[in-house]
Amino acid sequence: MSQVKQHKIDLAESEMPTRWYNVLHDLPTPPPPPLHPGTGQPIGPDDLAPLFPMDLIMQEVSTDQYVDIPEEVLDVYRLWRPSPLFRAHRLEKALGTPARIYYKYEGVSPAGSHKPNTAVPQAYYNAKAGIKKLTTETGAGQWGTSLAFACAQFDLECEVWQVRASYDQKPYRRLMIETFGGVVHPSPSPLTAAGQKILAEHPDSPGSLGIAISEAVEVAAQDPTINYSLGSVLNHVLMHQTIIGEETLLQLAKIGETADLLVGCTGGGSNFGGLMFPFLREKWAGRMNPDVIAVEPAACPSLTQGTYAYDFGDTAGMTPLLKMHTLGHDFIPDPIHSGGLRYHGMSPLISHLYETGEIGAVAKQQNECFAAGVLFARTEGIVPAPEPTHALAVTIEEALRCKESGEEKVIVTALCGHGHLDLPAYGAYLSGSVTDTGWEDETLKAAVAEALTKLPALA
Amino acid sequence: MSQVKQHKIDLAESEMPTRWYNVLHDLPTPPPPPLHPGTGQPIGPDDLAPLFPMDLIMQEVSTDQYVDIPEEVLDVYRLWRPSPLFRAHRLEKALGTPARIYYKYEGVSPAGSHKPNTAVPQAYYNAKAGIKKLTTETGAGQWGTSLAFACAQFDLECEVWQVRASYDQKPYRRLMIETFGGVVHPSPSPLTAAGQKILAEHPDSPGSLGIAISEAVEVAAQDPTINYSLGSVLNHVLMHQTIIGEETLLQLAKIGETADLLVGCTGGGSNFGGLMFPFLREKWAGRMNPDVIAVEPAACPSLTQGTYAYDFGDTAGMTPLLKMHTLGHDFIPDPIHSGGLRYHGMSPLISHLYETGEIGAVAKQQNECFAAGVLFARTEGIVPAPEPTHALAVTIEEALRCKESGEEKVIVTALCGHGHLDLPAYGAYLSGSVTDTGWEDETLKAAVAEALTKLPALA
Repeated sequence: MSQVKQHKIDLAESEMPTRWYNVLHDLPTPPPPPLHPGTGQPIGPDDLAPLFPMDLIMQEVSTDQYVDIPEEVLDVYRLWRPSPLFRAHRLEKALGTPARIYYKYEGVSPAGSHKPNTAVPQAYYNAKAGIKKLTTETGAGQWGTSLAFACAQFDLECEVWQVRASYDQKPYRRLMIETFGGVVHPSPSPLTAAGQKILAEHPDSPGSLGIAISEAVEVAAQDPTINYSLGSVLNHVLMHQTIIGEETLLQLAKIGETADLLVGCTGGGSNFGGLMFPFLREKWAGRMNPDVIAVEPAACPSLTQGTYAYDFGDTAGMTPLLKMHTLGHDFIPDPIHSGGLRYHGMSPLISHLYETGEIGAVAKQQNECFAAGVLFARTEGIVPAPEPTHALAVTIEEALRCKESGEEKVIVTALCGHGHLDLPAYGAYLSGSVTDTGWEDETLKAAVAEALTKLPALA
Repeated sequence: MSQVKQHKIDLAESEMPTRWYNVLHDLPTPPPPPLHPGTGQPIGPDDLAPLFPMDLIMQEVSTDQYVDIPEEVLDVYRLWRPSPLFRAHRLEKALGTPARIYYKYEGVSPAGSHKPNTAVPQAYYNAKAGIKKLTTETGAGQWGTSLAFACAQFDLECEVWQVRASYDQKPYRRLMIETFGGVVHPSPSPLTAAGQKILAEHPDSPGSLGIAISEAVEVAAQDPTINYSLGSVLNHVLMHQTIIGEETLLQLAKIGETADLLVGCTGGGSNFGGLMFPFLREKWAGRMNPDVIAVEPAACPSLTQGTYAYDFGDTAGMTPLLKMHTLGHDFIPDPIHSGGLRYHGMSPLISHLYETGEIGAVAKQQNECFAAGVLFARTEGIVPAPEPTHALAVTIEEALRCKESGEEKVIVTALCGHGHLDLPAYGAYLSGSVTDTGWEDETLKAAVAEALTKLPALA
């Protein structure tokens, strides 16, 4: 038996998928439509025209199974795609698990996460439609960075409202957006009516994605040369992310593996949907039968604790009404370190899949997620963003269950970004100052602590 | 003609080189030996034994042409290696140059730079020799991060003295070292006699690599279970880095290209030597004839302004005397943002090659380097560390010369790390608060500003 372990399953640029997958084509039952906030009737393409270019609107409502990726977009994708799929040999060894753990790593992108997968086509279609500027919201800052980079590729201006909690916690993100040429405001800001209203009531508001969306939408709606761009939640956004899952299927096929369990974190749902939708297609076609689990933060548990109802996507109530799992559009989550998961709602597509039993969901506290992140960093050499440590925590739990049962399960997890700009969060964790509210699971932390003492076994 | 441009020239893990190249075997003339600081005689292996394991000492003095890389080291290398070689299509287009620009990107490593290439074997050989802890210095923090990661792989403790200028400017680096399990002190520190002496004279000392080396060496020399680890300068360190150049040769051969010009930045010289030595071997064998240029910061110009003389590697005078280009072992450079280039000396091997005319050198000011870095980020999607922006500045100048002459030169540059943890430096540049002393070249900044206005042409 060879001692040589392959860590990375690579695809050549020439093997990169050239079309996105539209899960709407294959859903066992159709999801409820978005409703107009004024009339309560299903919205049409014209209702979205003030904010989005027609190409994206048609993608939002399309039921075609695949959409070709424009060559201009593929050329930018190739700066970092296909992204690597890793076998986590050293993490497995530290855990002593018979499970085979794979992680699809999106941190190789310009922004350091999966977000450019949709930022680039959104910028492209807007530029093609003659738009001059895009506005957007950002939480942890990944999305704002991604859109700033994408706008630089297609000669668009980029203006970003960043949730104040993250703006204050993560100054490096703002500097990265500016390095790529974007402009950043903390949200709530005095620049919009929506922001002014919040500030009048809560001058110290930490902000939320819902508020930041209201601000960015307000500015875009007032000028025909300005459009708005959303980094998650919507159908077309999740569709752009399916290149993650399509690549992963090709990579697993290369080494003859089939996923038994897929785990991803969920904020708005785009990283999760991007990995899972192509696997669900394969499941519905009877070609494989993986379990699929969404992991959300205990401080913002829209799937596990929210209601499934029509709600606004933003705080001020400017967006169409979406049928989704929601904590209420005026919910402001604690300023946890996973800024990208602080969203009151959940993508209607993911909500529909959860409601129909196609996927499961669990919620995790911060400290157990950071424990998983530190173990992962010391074994695999990548410091994960706080968001995907939620998926890593569940992955590690499942791998430890396999250790007890002896099951050689194939687990695939979405490592949607690196944590280079989240190091103060790790500093807070290492110094013991990260606080969780409510229940806290000590089991995982103990198991991780034990694995950390076994690192010598790696040598 | 196909519209499809290949951005990345990848190697499979199975194509990764399995031996390091030792330039000492092929040097046209041998370099002067290190001298014992007490006797003035050439040092022998026993003189180095208090600090280094015998495997590394023998590599330091070996004249074998190649050294096999242990499988335990290859297994860790494969977490990120082979690293990608990129063709900078979008930068070329922004510059309008007929030159073909390639960059070898080491930012995919756990630390985000080339440094783990030597940290991993150093930790491995020390662990093999029964050592329990490694001490070291770090400037920008790349080296400390790399050694902390490497120590985690082989069950070693890791204690790092970080130059205070960088410790204060770049807190994220300390947090990353701690996430990997290392311990960090700002240098000069009150923990050592060397640090105490400096602090007594200069309580506000910004520190220097020379001082930090003295502190780390002092602690290691006092305990037989503790060794010292150096991140650059020494022969064995540069040898470990030659995997960069060996991979680059294979990657260029894959696409039928031959380098006309190679450009790298130099602090202690390890990134530079790592890329260049294998190419110099090919040159001496008559198989190619590239020009090779070292780029150093104007604030610490050891090659272009230093003297070629025997000097200490550290400030307190505890190391052997090395024949090198030096600004004097008590030289404390301005706290420029490129912390990794703030070293008073230069690798004896690089100094010897410069003295014998095998390589050229130029010095660059900070602002023109950051201008190059911003253009690179907006076109290629990678925010470079401040150190390799020195090489990018010269690469861009040469590409602009090619635009005038029409020459289709093949330029290969060493992009030795990303700048995710250096974003405050970019913030300072973008806000106009980076200051240069002495001359400043406005030509490059004007050319870069013009290229930035042409980004629409990329769309």
